[in-house]
Amino acid sequence: MNFIGLFNKAVGTTHSRLCIGLDPEVNLLPLSVKNKKRSLFLFNKTIIDATHDLVCAYKPNSAFYESSGAGGILELKMTCDYIKKNYPKILIFLDAKRADIGNTNRHYVEYAFGYLGVDAITLHPYLGEEGIAPFLERSNKGCIILCRTSNPGAREFQNLKVDGTLLYQTVAKQVAQKWNSRKNCMLVVGATYPSEMKEIRKLAPNVPFLIPGIGAQGGDLEASITAGIDSRGGGIVIAVSRTVLYTSGSGDFALAARKKAKELRDQIDEIIQRLS
Amino acid sequence: MNFIGLFNKAVGTTHSRLCIGLDPEVNLLPLSVKNKKRSLFLFNKTIIDATHDLVCAYKPNSAFYESSGAGGILELKMTCDYIKKNYPKILIFLDAKRADIGNTNRHYVEYAFGYLGVDAITLHPYLGEEGIAPFLERSNKGCIILCRTSNPGAREFQNLKVDGTLLYQTVAKQVAQKWNSRKNCMLVVGATYPSEMKEIRKLAPNVPFLIPGIGAQGGDLEASITAGIDSRGGGIVIAVSRTVLYTSGSGDFALAARKKAKELRDQIDEIIQRLS
Repeated sequence: MNFIGLFNKAVGTTHSRLCIGLDPEVNLLPLSVKNKKRSLFLFNKTIIDATHDLVCAYKPNSAFYESSGAGGILELKMTCDYIKKNYPKILIFLDAKRADIGNTNRHYVEYAFGYLGVDAITLHPYLGEEGIAPFLERSNKGCIILCRTSNPGAREFQNLKVDGTLLYQTVAKQVAQKWNSRKNCMLVVGATYPSEMKEIRKLAPNVPFLIPGIGAQGGDLEASITAGIDSRGGGIVIAVSRTVLYTSGSGDFALAARKKAKELRDQIDEIIQRLS
Repeated sequence: MNFIGLFNKAVGTTHSRLCIGLDPEVNLLPLSVKNKKRSLFLFNKTIIDATHDLVCAYKPNSAFYESSGAGGILELKMTCDYIKKNYPKILIFLDAKRADIGNTNRHYVEYAFGYLGVDAITLHPYLGEEGIAPFLERSNKGCIILCRTSNPGAREFQNLKVDGTLLYQTVAKQVAQKWNSRKNCMLVVGATYPSEMKEIRKLAPNVPFLIPGIGAQGGDLEASITAGIDSRGGGIVIAVSRTVLYTSGSGDFALAARKKAKELRDQIDEIIQRLS
């Protein structure tokens, strides 16, 4: 099955369009976890066990593990292995924002799809389709291409006017019309720009969106879903991390995370029901 | 001292504008190394010991270590530690092509400048200056921004026309006029496009270029140096990896690498002398 098929299947079986980012910040971890061995993994495991019936995907961000060096990477692998073993219906998106020339990308492919065994990876578009071919060739693995990111300074390049359209629109068009020929691409479209998301949906009607920027970054859930939903009432997944992970900084953090995740999952559901 | 100062100092003390990429491919390693423990580090150490008096910088590419997981990252750290301890005049450029939103970039900063302790890192421009601010703020550490990459498909986005100039030119201008305010930026400009490099030099007269693409990728050394050299006869560093690392696949690989590196270092020198 191609990746978009796997994505739709995961949404169908989990009844959720929520993705929780597993971005453990050592200095934000609850005391009950912070001083233990393998605290990043332990924190993730607790969050995963508390939320596994509420999400279609987990999205660990590689940076949060790389900062702890080789030990951090091991805890990232332990996290991925834990999800695959215990909750095999849930997808894993590696947020790594990679892209290099071809022979180097083969190594990133091995890191993501071999060593960690994740289902998809986020990628920079700047080197073009040829550069990221080693990722695109894996039809059952997802390539989640940065299109319109959620950060305040994203417009510096992404909103440059290119032959009458904006650069992020050109990225959306290329991905929709060319890169997605194996039906394994998604686009990252930040919740902080719903009107731009609406334009991107027109340009890429069949490409699912990964939507970060709800919560800590200020994006509006209803506006984002309204702008991003496709003609079949799907094609989106909402990614949150800080909002869920650090709702409570004390011993009840897992319960608090579950409560917040359930609230979000239900809100997403309710908005989609209303729109359809 | 700012990073460009450190870069010029390294070139001055090492009398070299050659940078060797430390990109160990397990299946290309000589048999004498391949089956040993910590073979990536062992290969690097042998190459470093054989070439340390011929280079101003080493450039390990993170991907080639990530593909071996946590153990690979440890060997990357061992490599960086080995260079810093034994050859402190030589800079280390981490080729990692990172860039994420601000709070995530703080973790990549920690990975590169904290854990590995390198002097500079390669970065994608797509998220804009605000996104990579955590890197730019470190004036004594280098931000090597992808401008015109050496891969055949680079033009898909990099050569799009943006308000009369091409996207890679806009990146060059932004870096030269804004991002480089702390004198700690460089630009990646592939040797495979000397005429485009000449344009970039005009737009960014004071930003050093990291020039990959000589050798395996087919770039021409003389044309690249002629196009990239700045008005003071400097501002460039030539990056090679496969050409030097795998000149010989057998027991004499270190000697063969040294011979090739010396040849390149001398050629670069000779061309610069002739041009000045």
